Amino acid sequence: MTADGAPILGMIGGGQLARMTAEAATALGIGFRVLAASPDDPAAQVVREVRFGSHEDLDAVLAFAEGCTVVTFDHEHVPAAVLAAIEARGIAVRPGPQALVHAQDKIQMRSALSAIGVPCPAWAAVERPDQVEAFAAEHGWPVVLKTSRGGYDGRGVWVVRSAHELAEVMDTPLAAGTGWLAEQHIPFERELAAQVARSPHGQAVAYPVVQTTQIDGICAEVVAPAPGLSEERALQAQEIALRIARDLEVIGMLAVELFDTGTTLIVNELAMRPHNSGHWSIEGAVTSQFENHVRAVLDLPLGDPSMRADRAVMVNVLGGQVGNLYSAYRHVLARDAELKVHLYGKQVRPGRKVGHVTLLGSDADALLARGRHAADYFSGVIDE
Amino acid sequence: MTADGAPILGMIGGGQLARMTAEAATALGIGFRVLAASPDDPAAQVVREVRFGSHEDLDAVLAFAEGCTVVTFDHEHVPAAVLAAIEARGIAVRPGPQALVHAQDKIQMRSALSAIGVPCPAWAAVERPDQVEAFAAEHGWPVVLKTSRGGYDGRGVWVVRSAHELAEVMDTPLAAGTGWLAEQHIPFERELAAQVARSPHGQAVAYPVVQTTQIDGICAEVVAPAPGLSEERALQAQEIALRIARDLEVIGMLAVELFDTGTTLIVNELAMRPHNSGHWSIEGAVTSQFENHVRAVLDLPLGDPSMRADRAVMVNVLGGQVGNLYSAYRHVLARDAELKVHLYGKQVRPGRKVGHVTLLGSDADALLARGRHAADYFSGVIDE
Repeated sequence: MTADGAPILGMIGGGQLARMTAEAATALGIGFRVLAASPDDPAAQVVREVRFGSHEDLDAVLAFAEGCTVVTFDHEHVPAAVLAAIEARGIAVRPGPQALVHAQDKIQMRSALSAIGVPCPAWAAVERPDQVEAFAAEHGWPVVLKTSRGGYDGRGVWVVRSAHELAEVMDTPLAAGTGWLAEQHIPFERELAAQVARSPHGQAVAYPVVQTTQIDGICAEVVAPAPGLSEERALQAQEIALRIARDLEVIGMLAVELFDTGTTLIVNELAMRPHNSGHWSIEGAVTSQFENHVRAVLDLPLGDPSMRADRAVMVNVLGGQVGNLYSAYRHVLARDAELKVHLYGKQVRPGRKVGHVTLLGSDADALLARGRHAADYFSGVIDE
Repeated sequence: MTADGAPILGMIGGGQLARMTAEAATALGIGFRVLAASPDDPAAQVVREVRFGSHEDLDAVLAFAEGCTVVTFDHEHVPAAVLAAIEARGIAVRPGPQALVHAQDKIQMRSALSAIGVPCPAWAAVERPDQVEAFAAEHGWPVVLKTSRGGYDGRGVWVVRSAHELAEVMDTPLAAGTGWLAEQHIPFERELAAQVARSPHGQAVAYPVVQTTQIDGICAEVVAPAPGLSEERALQAQEIALRIARDLEVIGMLAVELFDTGTTLIVNELAMRPHNSGHWSIEGAVTSQFENHVRAVLDLPLGDPSMRADRAVMVNVLGGQVGNLYSAYRHVLARDAELKVHLYGKQVRPGRKVGHVTLLGSDADALLARGRHAADYFSGVIDE
C-alpha cells in the first residue's frame, strides 16, 4: 500500500504498454511500480518506482514483487516457475499462471479453445516435417507453422507453401519447452480484434470490435469500430472474447485476434494484457484499455468501454531512417491540430514500433489518410 | 535533450499540476523533470526525473535547470531573482519573468490590465486603513482587500465590510515586497474562466469559456462551456484572455478568472500555468490544457482546444474526515461507469484539493449531480 492507502500495482516489463498503463495508474492515484530490463525502456524513462532486472531472474522478480498488492505484465514471457514463486509469497498474480499459459503457449491455447468450442483453424502439434506434410495432405498448402512460445510481431510465424520450404523452416532450433504448431492457412477478408476486460469477481466489459491491418506481421493500423461489420457479427466476436475470458479465467485485458472470412470468424491469437489493437481507446473510449486493465487486476469496478466518437483510427509509427522523431513535430502538429501523438521514447530502428497516432471523427477513410500521413512523416517515408 | 533528441522540460513545483503535466509530456515523448519540495509531493511520487529542493533556493533551482531545454512552473511563487538567474544561464524560462510578475503580484497585474484597457474592478494600492476608508468612501463597502503576493485558494483575500473589520485585517504583518490591494466589491451573477494557450512565435488558441463555482474561495466545480452564455459574451471573454496573453507576452497557458455581472465581464485574477478551471480538458477537449502548456512552452504548434462532448463538468474532491480515498473506489466506480477520477496522491486534510472527477455528456445539471455525489462520497460527506 502507498502512504495514503492505495494499492501498489507492479508491472513486469518496461515497454510502451507499461508506459501507457502508468498514465492510467497515475490518474487513479494507484501506486505503480515497473520491473524493466534497462533504463532506456519506455516505462523506465518516466515511472518513478522502477526496478531493474530480468523477468526470468527469480530473485529480481521476487524482490520487485515484495510490497506489491498485485503483479501484472506488459508481456507474456515471464516463466511459469517465476509466476508460481510470486503467488507462493501470497502476492496476487493477474492474470494468473493458469490463464496466462494460454497466451504464452499457442499449443495450449489451441487445445483450450478447441475444448470450449471456440472456432479455430484446423491445427496440430507437430515435431517433424513428415507430420506437417500429413497435415497439409488433409488441409492443403500453405500451412502456417508457428513456434508454440516466444513469437511476437510476426516473429515465430511462417507461411510454408511446400515441403521444400518446410524443411528449411523446421531446421530452426527451438528453445527448450517450445514446440511446433501447424495451422490451416485461413484466407480471410480482413482481421478483427475483440477486447474485453474481466475482473476477479467476474465482472466483464467488451470494447467495440475493431479492424486491424497487419503489414509483415506487425500491426499497422486499427479502425474502431470495424467498418461495415454487422451488429450480429460484432456481437459474435464479443461473445467469443467474453467466453474465452470466462472459461480461461482471464483477469485484466484480453485481446482476441480474429480472421473475418466474410462468412465466419476464426480465432487467430490471444493476448492477456493491453494490446496494440486497443491504443485508440486512450482518447476514443470513455475508459481506456490501460485504465480498465488497472481496474480489473485490482478488482475495482470496470469502466465504460463505449466510444467517445463515431470512429477512432490508430496508426502505428514505425522506425525508419530518421533517428530523431521530435524533429517531425513542428510539421505534423501544425498540419493537423486534432492529431494525438504518443511517442514511446524508444531508440529508432527500422520497422520498430516507436509510437502511434490517434484521430477521432466519423469518416474512417479520411481519418486513416491523416493518420498515415503523420506516421509516414515521423518515419521519414515522406517529407512534406 | 533526451537520448532520442526530444527536449527536456523542467517544471518547478511538484503539485498536482506538475503530476498532470507529466502525463501529457509522457504521451508526447518529451523529457520531463520536476523540482519538488518533498517525495510526498503529487508529482514526485510518479515522475522519474525528480529533483528535490526549494523553489526559493537559487543553487537548487540552477542545478535543477541545468540540462533543461525550457523551465516552466506549476505555481507562481518562484522569486524574480531566481528566474533571472536561470535565464542568465541561457535556459529559456516560460512564461518569462516579465510576464509572470503579473501572476505573482496583483498590484502589477491591475496596473498592467488597466493600462491595456481590460475591464477591472476599481482598485488602489494601499498601505494604511485610512486609505482604504477613502477608497470605500468613493466605491462603497464592502471593500475586497488582498495581499499583492502569496495568496491562493482564498488565502490572502478578505471581504471587509466596515472600518472596524479593516483594522483587524490590516494588522496582519506582510512579507517583504508584499503590499495591500484594495478592490471594489463586484456583485456578480456568476464566475467564469477563459483559458488560452500562447506560444513564443505568437500562435494562440482559446478554450471554451467555463463557469466556475467557488466555495470559501476554493474552486468547487466547473462547467464547460458555461451554460447559457451568449456567443457574444463568450467571444468577449476569449478576446480579453487573448489580449492579455498577447500584451503581457504570456507563454504557455493563461487562465483569466472573470466576474459575470449579468451585463458585463470584469477580470478578477490571472494564472499563468495550467489551472483548476481547465482540468475538464483532460477528457473533455481534443487537446488538454496540460498538453497545450507543454506544446506552448516548447514552441510547438498548439493543439485543438475544441470540446469532445456537448458539455463537461469537473468537481473537485476535497479532503474530509476520511483519510483513505481509495476505500471509496468500489462504491463510486460501480455507481457510475462513466466517471473519470483523478486522485493526486496527497495526504488528506480537511478542505484540501486531493483530486477531481470529470463527466462528459449534454445535461449539465445531471452531470453535476453525478460529479458532486462522487466527490462527496470521496470526502465522506455522504456514505451511500
